[in-house]
Amino acid sequence: MKVRTENGEKDIRAVWFENGKVVMIDQRRLPHELVFVSFDRYEDVAESIRNMTTRGAPSIGATAAYGMCLAALSGCDLVKAAKDIKAARPTANDLFYAVDHMTERLSEGADPIEAADAYAQSMVDKCIAIGKYGGELIKDGYRIMTHCNAGALATVDVGTALAPMRKAKSDGKKFFVYASETRPRLQGMQLTAWELNQEGMDHAIIPDGSSGHFIRQGVDMIIVGADRIAANGDFANKIGTFEKAVLAKEFGVPFYVAAPISTFDFNTATGADIVIENRSEEEVTMVGDIRIAPVGSPALNPAFDMTPARYVTGFITEKGILRPEEISKVKG
Amino acid sequence: MKVRTENGEKDIRAVWFENGKVVMIDQRRLPHELVFVSFDRYEDVAESIRNMTTRGAPSIGATAAYGMCLAALSGCDLVKAAKDIKAARPTANDLFYAVDHMTERLSEGADPIEAADAYAQSMVDKCIAIGKYGGELIKDGYRIMTHCNAGALATVDVGTALAPMRKAKSDGKKFFVYASETRPRLQGMQLTAWELNQEGMDHAIIPDGSSGHFIRQGVDMIIVGADRIAANGDFANKIGTFEKAVLAKEFGVPFYVAAPISTFDFNTATGADIVIENRSEEEVTMVGDIRIAPVGSPALNPAFDMTPARYVTGFITEKGILRPEEISKVKG
Repeated sequence: MKVRTENGEKDIRAVWFENGKVVMIDQRRLPHELVFVSFDRYEDVAESIRNMTTRGAPSIGATAAYGMCLAALSGCDLVKAAKDIKAARPTANDLFYAVDHMTERLSEGADPIEAADAYAQSMVDKCIAIGKYGGELIKDGYRIMTHCNAGALATVDVGTALAPMRKAKSDGKKFFVYASETRPRLQGMQLTAWELNQEGMDHAIIPDGSSGHFIRQGVDMIIVGADRIAANGDFANKIGTFEKAVLAKEFGVPFYVAAPISTFDFNTATGADIVIENRSEEEVTMVGDIRIAPVGSPALNPAFDMTPARYVTGFITEKGILRPEEISKVKG
Repeated sequence: MKVRTENGEKDIRAVWFENGKVVMIDQRRLPHELVFVSFDRYEDVAESIRNMTTRGAPSIGATAAYGMCLAALSGCDLVKAAKDIKAARPTANDLFYAVDHMTERLSEGADPIEAADAYAQSMVDKCIAIGKYGGELIKDGYRIMTHCNAGALATVDVGTALAPMRKAKSDGKKFFVYASETRPRLQGMQLTAWELNQEGMDHAIIPDGSSGHFIRQGVDMIIVGADRIAANGDFANKIGTFEKAVLAKEFGVPFYVAAPISTFDFNTATGADIVIENRSEEEVTMVGDIRIAPVGSPALNPAFDMTPARYVTGFITEKGILRPEEISKVKG
C-alpha cells in the first residue's frame, strides 16, 4: 500500500520482516499517526496481536508466521512459542492456521524467514488476483460504496474489497468512493478512509445512515469484504453490510463481496448457522472514557450481520468472480 | 413528560411559564444532567433559542411565544421584541409563526400569559391526539423502532413519534423500543433514549447500521417524525429515515410517520422539490474538539433524507391516520 511519510511516498505492507525484526504499522495510532514498531522477540509479537497493534485476520496470520520465524531464529522452544502465539487472540482461525503451517514448514527444515515471507506473500497474491478480477468491473466515472475496512491494513497488503479499487486506480481509471464510517468502531472512517487518502483516491466518509440517500442519488457498485461465507453464499460481515445489500437490490445496484476462497466455510450450510457475536455495549455508549449515552439506557452491539446470498451479485475471489450458485465449483 | 429528579418523579414540559419567568430544560446538558434555566427578559429567551438551550421546531415556537409574553409583561417595544426573537434562528418557520401569532393576539388585548400558554397547549393537544390514534396501533408485546428525536423535548410535551408509545405505556401495554443512535448528532441516543429511560419504557440504543439486522430479527412497526411532508406524501426527515423505510418494505413491517397537519406543505408537490440541507463535515469528523477522521479525508453530511410516499403505511396526525392517498382530505 502507498503511504505518505516525511520522506515522501513509500510502498509498504502492514507487517514484514527486516534486519532480524518483525516490523508493523501500529494500527492503534491510525488515522492520526503512521507509526512503525518492530520486535525481535516472539513474545512481543504475540503481545502485538493481543493488544491489536495489528488487526485483520490475514494480517494477524502473517504476524503470527513472523512470530514463529523469530522463535525459530532465536532457538526458542517452538512448541511453547506456537502455544503462546495462538493464545494471543483465542478465536482467530487465520492465527491458528498460520502457526500450524509454520510449525510444519519449520519441522521440514524450511528457512524461517523464507517460510514466513511465503506465507505473507500468499495472502498478498490472492489480493492481487482479487484486484485483477474486481478491477475489471470498475468503469471510468464509477461511484463505489464500501463499508468497514477490508483493505491492505487487514490483509498484509492490497486488501480484499479495496483491491479492485487499487487496481482500477493503477489502470488510470477515475472513480469516487463512499466509505461509510462503520459505527461503533469507525473502521470505515479511521482505516478505509485513511488508506484511500494515502493512495490519493477520491473519496468521502459518510454516516452509516446516509447510505440509502447516496445509493438513491447514484452509486454504480458496492464492494464489501466478508468474515465468513456459508456454502450457499449467505455471508457474515461487519454490522451495516446487510442494509446496503437490501438498498442495492431496491435500486438495482450491483453488490459484490470480495474475499479469498479461504473465507468460504463449506461446513456452514447457510447463514442461519452463523452465530453473530454481540460485543460490549460500551463500544456504543462510550467514546474513550466518556459516556455519551444516558445513564440507564442499554445498547445493543451486534458486531456482524448476515446477508442472504440472494442479495449478492458476485463473489470476487482469487479464482475469478462467482455467482452464489457457482460457489460449489471452488469447494476444495 | 415524566422525568426523575432528586425529589422524585415529576411531570414537566420542555418549556413553560411560572412565577413571572420562562422556565425550560437546558437541552444542551442532556443526557448527562437535567438542568432547568429560567429567564425574565425576552432578550435572554431569544438567546436561549439562538444557543440551542431549547430545540425542536414546536418547542422553539412555544419558547418564542413565551418570549413575546415576557416582552408584553415588561412593557417592552413589541415590534422590536418580535424582530429580536425572530432573528434567533433565521430559518425556523414555527418561530416566525409563533411570534406573529402572539403579536396579533396581544394587539387584540389578550392576556400575555394566557395567549402564550394557549399557543403551547395547542401543540401539546395535537401530540395527545397523535398519541391517541397512534397508540391504538401498538399491541402488547410489540417491538417498535424509531429514529432521531421526535419526542416531548422537541414538541413542548408528549412528542410526535413518541406520543403513541407514551399512550400505549399509560394504557398498560408492554413493548420494546429500538432507538437508533442517529449519527452524526446522536439525537436518538442522547434525547430519545433519555426520554424513554425517564418514562421507564423498555428500550435499547442501536447503531444506525444495525437497523436492518434488527428489522429482519423482528420489528412490528416503525414510527418516525417528519420535518416536511409534500402534498403527495413524500417526506423529509432526519438522515437515516429512508433506509429504515426501504428495510420495512422489504420485510413487510408497517412504517408510520407521526406529525401534526401543520407539517404538511401543500405548496410542495413532491419530495423532488424538497431541498436537502448539507451540514458541516465537522459534525461527522470531530467529536467535540477532537478530530476522529484522517486529516485529508472529506465527509458528506446531509442532514435529512427524503422518503417517497410509497414506503409509508400511514401518517399519524391529530385528525387520525391517513394513507398517503388521503392527504388531500386535510388540505386547509
